[in-house]
Amino acid sequence: MKLYNFELSGNCYKVRLLCALLGVPVEITDMDLPGGEHQRSPHIERNAFTQIPVLEDNGVTLRDSQAILIYIARKWGGDTWLPADAVSLATVAQWLMVAENEIARGPGDARLHDKFGRAVDIDVAREKAHRLLAIMDAHLARNEWLALGHPTIADIACMPYIAISHEGGVTLERYPAVQAWINRIKKLPNFIPMPGM
Amino acid sequence: MKLYNFELSGNCYKVRLLCALLGVPVEITDMDLPGGEHQRSPHIERNAFTQIPVLEDNGVTLRDSQAILIYIARKWGGDTWLPADAVSLATVAQWLMVAENEIARGPGDARLHDKFGRAVDIDVAREKAHRLLAIMDAHLARNEWLALGHPTIADIACMPYIAISHEGGVTLERYPAVQAWINRIKKLPNFIPMPGM
Repeated sequence: MKLYNFELSGNCYKVRLLCALLGVPVEITDMDLPGGEHQRSPHIERNAFTQIPVLEDNGVTLRDSQAILIYIARKWGGDTWLPADAVSLATVAQWLMVAENEIARGPGDARLHDKFGRAVDIDVAREKAHRLLAIMDAHLARNEWLALGHPTIADIACMPYIAISHEGGVTLERYPAVQAWINRIKKLPNFIPMPGM
Repeated sequence: MKLYNFELSGNCYKVRLLCALLGVPVEITDMDLPGGEHQRSPHIERNAFTQIPVLEDNGVTLRDSQAILIYIARKWGGDTWLPADAVSLATVAQWLMVAENEIARGPGDARLHDKFGRAVDIDVAREKAHRLLAIMDAHLARNEWLALGHPTIADIACMPYIAISHEGGVTLERYPAVQAWINRIKKLPNFIPMPGM
């Protein structure tokens, strides 16, 4: 497998993290995002949405970090990281959608503003972040892992931008259950961190 | 199955549509969204994110329209609407993520602004809509269906807010392949429309 990567992207990190946890080798190709390499050929032929990560494996090209987690979990993770029965699959997917939507528009956007100078309504992003964190904290006070009784790609998809939310001016002080959940993930065998974590 | 529904929501419609296409009976409970019923108990116990649709089935409660499509497709759709092998599952998931992210932030937000008076940067939403539609049109000029060689929940998830994008001031004039794709979906056996379509 070949991963088109940017070290400071939480979306790329979650792919690297799942590979590390599963012990799956992945060839990393770093992209020059500040230089706009992702917006030019040949990357736009890999992903018309001009984003990273992109994964190539056996002639298949996949975009979107959540979809890539699904692929790796189904191919290499047995039935642990993404069980295939209807209830488990949908329960995990609920949280993949939170990663794609609420986390991206909350802590993700706040960090894009503070760290990369992106044009974002920072007050709205931080307000969304805290609304989300309150929901997650209540959920994690009653559940050790987000989706099922054990770690799944739901946890891998949601953790990165929460764990580095301080880079967008969002503190986790008021969310002890979220902090405890991040620490549980950090203790998983073969865990690797990302810059800022 | 019981669906907590709002007739004008494209996210609720996509669930009703998949049930119709599969011939699966679903009990519809209409929610009073203008009256804020979704933001009060007992709905916040069903979904802490205070959104619709929510699906209840056999003691399982699911939120998020994309996750609900996954559940129904895996439970009732055989291997047609969401094949379970790693490549197919991830290929469909890529487009579920487009429904959750780019479609919601583009044509979805533009319609929220124009039709429901929601505070949205309308110029940004319409610009995102056209950037997305250009990508989808190029993809659909080469592919009959979004993800695989036949209709899947990728098409069901992405179509609604594209087909009613005129309600947000976004016209499909410049996107003939998108228009042809919508018409192919409308010709599927047992298709049902939504208001505005």
